[in-house]
Amino acid sequence: MRYVSQIFQPVITIPKNAKVKNTDITCKSQKLLLECGLVRPTSSGFFALLPLARRALDKLETLVKTCVEAAGAQRVTLPALTAAQLWETTGRLADVGSELLTVEDRHKKEYLLAPTHEEAIADLLADVGPLSYKQLPLVLYQINNKYRDEHRPKHGLLRAREFTMLDAYGAHRDTGCAETVYEDMTTAYTRLFERLQLPVYRVPAPTGDMGGTLSHEWQVPASAGEDAISVCPSCSHAALDSTECARCGKETERVNSIEVGHTFILGTRYSGPLKANYIPPSGPPQPLIMSCYGIGITRLLAASLEALSSEKSMRWPRAIAPYSAVIIGPKEGSKEWQHHGEDRVHEVYKRIAQAQDAVIDDRHQLTIGKRLMMADRLGYPTIVVCGRAVLEIPPRYEVHRCLPGSSQEPALVTLEGLIDMLEGEGREKVLEVNKA
Amino acid sequence: MRYVSQIFQPVITIPKNAKVKNTDITCKSQKLLLECGLVRPTSSGFFALLPLARRALDKLETLVKTCVEAAGAQRVTLPALTAAQLWETTGRLADVGSELLTVEDRHKKEYLLAPTHEEAIADLLADVGPLSYKQLPLVLYQINNKYRDEHRPKHGLLRAREFTMLDAYGAHRDTGCAETVYEDMTTAYTRLFERLQLPVYRVPAPTGDMGGTLSHEWQVPASAGEDAISVCPSCSHAALDSTECARCGKETERVNSIEVGHTFILGTRYSGPLKANYIPPSGPPQPLIMSCYGIGITRLLAASLEALSSEKSMRWPRAIAPYSAVIIGPKEGSKEWQHHGEDRVHEVYKRIAQAQDAVIDDRHQLTIGKRLMMADRLGYPTIVVCGRAVLEIPPRYEVHRCLPGSSQEPALVTLEGLIDMLEGEGREKVLEVNKA
Repeated sequence: MRYVSQIFQPVITIPKNAKVKNTDITCKSQKLLLECGLVRPTSSGFFALLPLARRALDKLETLVKTCVEAAGAQRVTLPALTAAQLWETTGRLADVGSELLTVEDRHKKEYLLAPTHEEAIADLLADVGPLSYKQLPLVLYQINNKYRDEHRPKHGLLRAREFTMLDAYGAHRDTGCAETVYEDMTTAYTRLFERLQLPVYRVPAPTGDMGGTLSHEWQVPASAGEDAISVCPSCSHAALDSTECARCGKETERVNSIEVGHTFILGTRYSGPLKANYIPPSGPPQPLIMSCYGIGITRLLAASLEALSSEKSMRWPRAIAPYSAVIIGPKEGSKEWQHHGEDRVHEVYKRIAQAQDAVIDDRHQLTIGKRLMMADRLGYPTIVVCGRAVLEIPPRYEVHRCLPGSSQEPALVTLEGLIDMLEGEGREKVLEVNKA
Repeated sequence: MRYVSQIFQPVITIPKNAKVKNTDITCKSQKLLLECGLVRPTSSGFFALLPLARRALDKLETLVKTCVEAAGAQRVTLPALTAAQLWETTGRLADVGSELLTVEDRHKKEYLLAPTHEEAIADLLADVGPLSYKQLPLVLYQINNKYRDEHRPKHGLLRAREFTMLDAYGAHRDTGCAETVYEDMTTAYTRLFERLQLPVYRVPAPTGDMGGTLSHEWQVPASAGEDAISVCPSCSHAALDSTECARCGKETERVNSIEVGHTFILGTRYSGPLKANYIPPSGPPQPLIMSCYGIGITRLLAASLEALSSEKSMRWPRAIAPYSAVIIGPKEGSKEWQHHGEDRVHEVYKRIAQAQDAVIDDRHQLTIGKRLMMADRLGYPTIVVCGRAVLEIPPRYEVHRCLPGSSQEPALVTLEGLIDMLEGEGREKVLEVNKA
């Protein structure tokens, strides 16, 4: 059994520490994650992820893995340090130099803390290559930390200097093959955002300094967003910038948004200069057509909170809430405490533990009301209160739901009623695991 | 279903690339991981982990998490970059400076790519503190990458410049409390190494520049090891350096070994200067007594291969083999191929897939002998060959086992016989998951 009293969660109600000035708090995900003890800044743009945030991130990482592996991607891990010379070869060292954190080793060799790995992957494919056309398409992905020396890091995890990314790279023999993989990865992204029940718009985008021929941004509407998209209220088509919907001609609405993903067909922008070739069925080796796919995982976590929470209470996509349920036991000294102690709490825990990732709030010295308030603020999708009604025969439990966009009244149900309420979720969970 | 033909595994038989000179290959784990296409150097002391190595590392990371969480540790993630000023405060910047990779950001602030996080954790505990004595003991752990600018990186993953570590940190009110946690973590380590079926010796060690009062190293005997321990052939007691066994007085044997873990009670070495205090039941705040626990995870992976493999064939602890079983189908054009095609292969896969993490070697253009040789070299714990005997009624399968230290003859069994053979392992697996 797991207990709230044992979780390291240094709650603060007013940011009082010198490192966190009130003026640094610029959006609600940042404020809630800090005040509820999930995240702690260690330095400008750098954050310690504390146990509850780490649990949510674990779930999100697993979900991302499941979705991209279903599209055929294979996990690899490249070093965070990329030789600067590779970026010199592709010309990006000069282009984005000021945003790079660089390292010189004891032999004066230059490395950069990679913000992305196109060069490193192309170099790997060149090193093991040339691949045969029979080995293509090939999609390799990573989940690890990336670095960007933001001039002014802000909004907490939304714009950090060290952040967790999914980055996937496709290697293809031609543009047609690349487009097929691009569609498969688009499906993987769509499935991920559906699982998160998050409104994410896919908008055509310029290819910018990544190079390449085709690109989309994946944007979540949120007032704290530093981007903006034009959404058609009629057909939900979205674009980066247009007053008229390209699909149905209606007038669009402009909303702030957070970029949580990006997809590109890169062509030979990196494979060319780095000599990442493949051998076609006939003729000499040719440069690979490459594609790449990014999702800012820590940013997506914060963007989910930004999109779903109120100013006062966190709301999570159910799939990534740190715990899916909390069980609040009676207050010490109450009548129900005197009769049952923690017996009812343990009974509930045992019955729901298989389907729910539950935790017991064992801080019995606090009133139920106080713990309920804290549980609502943390946004456990399900809160089960073992209060006065556990004295009834059969005992009944108060169930509160903290789900995005829902404002259900609490229900008073028997244990069997509770199991029924949660059963659909349990089944849903099993089905999802099987699908994976 | 998963197929060997789809795995990105760039096999090389003779290192031919400029980046990998023959003389750089100094031990068998390095040679086997490179030649079998699991790992690829990207630069001196930096490695790309390719899909099979990444799978093994995933399993090892999960096992490590399970063991330390059973001891009550909670996962956090701190930035890889630690402010240099923290290391200046504890005096370690000068002590180990030449092994540190450092970074200066655009505002000229100095960071180091942390080889370990005592300072960062003490600073975090100071920042959220002072903790109450009621919150103690507290154990936080991380699994992430660490950095050390080795003068001469060698032996592949055994001495890399970027490597994956478990690092756990205990915070305690007094030495007694620290010793209790130290024992719990010692149990976690012991359980981990038992699960890996790896001979690991725990030897008392000097505390060195970590500071502190109590320390043990965890050493795996292996000829490529850069350390050495004295092991008593009679009672298995081990020490760093002594010709006579401290426990039974017998003469010891000197063997090379690889350090895979380290445990320390640090006292107030870091909490003192960084002001990480707690509030005792009465009186003013006191510095926390700290402990720390490290396991080199990528090193442990390589050390396992070093200890268990032959020069020619990898042998894995069963728990971390990239796949636990491979099924080799008939050669194209053979009589069994003409009769059954891949039917028998799929039948076997479906029956064992629930308990075994299986993959199908679908390279039907290669002979069974050739694929069997490659499977043996890769060290799949179980190899099931669908050869000539699948034509019998009932069909029979040749089962080869690649387990450390075992040289079983291949067995010819029916499908039911195969299920029986593997059943114990399946059960073992389920039990382990339940324990976790």
